Amino acid sequence: MLKGLSPLLTPDLLRLIATMGHGDDLVVADRNFPAASVAAHTVTGQLVELPMAQNGPVLEAILSLFPLDSFVEKPIHHMQVVGEPDTVLEVHQEAAAIAARAEGRPVALGSIERFAFYEAARQAYAVVQTGETRPYGCFILKKGVIFD
Amino acid sequence: MLKGLSPLLTPDLLRLIATMGHGDDLVVADRNFPAASVAAHTVTGQLVELPMAQNGPVLEAILSLFPLDSFVEKPIHHMQVVGEPDTVLEVHQEAAAIAARAEGRPVALGSIERFAFYEAARQAYAVVQTGETRPYGCFILKKGVIFD
Repeated sequence: MLKGLSPLLTPDLLRLIATMGHGDDLVVADRNFPAASVAAHTVTGQLVELPMAQNGPVLEAILSLFPLDSFVEKPIHHMQVVGEPDTVLEVHQEAAAIAARAEGRPVALGSIERFAFYEAARQAYAVVQTGETRPYGCFILKKGVIFD
Repeated sequence: MLKGLSPLLTPDLLRLIATMGHGDDLVVADRNFPAASVAAHTVTGQLVELPMAQNGPVLEAILSLFPLDSFVEKPIHHMQVVGEPDTVLEVHQEAAAIAARAEGRPVALGSIERFAFYEAARQAYAVVQTGETRPYGCFILKKGVIFD
């Protein structure tokens, strides 16, 4: 436990996000995501598991410390609903709202087709798996810069 | 880099202090301290090296997240000047002032004779070595509890 930090920021998760730099991608994925097999292909091979938490609190905890990239139009991408590429689910809207609050600016979400998402996730730095029960609650967050 | 955190809180230092609990002791020591040999005997065997920083900024960074133990009268002990057990140096007064600011309450410092300090330090959780140039800039910090 550390003062002022969410208890969801476990020692391993803290260290993980602290080691990331500008442009590095972090996967935050729901309980159905093939997290271990995807994580094995990532830059670090690291998987942080938070099975007792839903996505919302985990995203709030991460984004309390992790700046989103302001150099790109869409610093977060979510997995598309299969066969419905334009559908935006509540789990996606929630993530956009949490990101906007954390950043103090609107944050636009992009989306990636399921198998392309797996491929993009394998190129990421590491994977965080939550216990999120809603399907398609899978995101790739691009880290930004701290200017001050 | 993470939002709102000192850059002195490196990934390894962040993880280290996050893994500590109530009553665990952290050594923060100057550049002359036998940090590696003492760290080898600690609970974790871990040594975090911050050779470019003086004690003050490192203590400020750590104590921005690390609660001091409020269950004991003296949650910080410093190494005594050899042959002058009652001497309190500026480097010790500085630490007390930084601790008081971080805690929002007066923090009393205890002191330990040099060789007893080495022995106490070997019982600690881990060691952080700074680049502090002033002698006797060696401390043992006892971690406290977060109540809210």
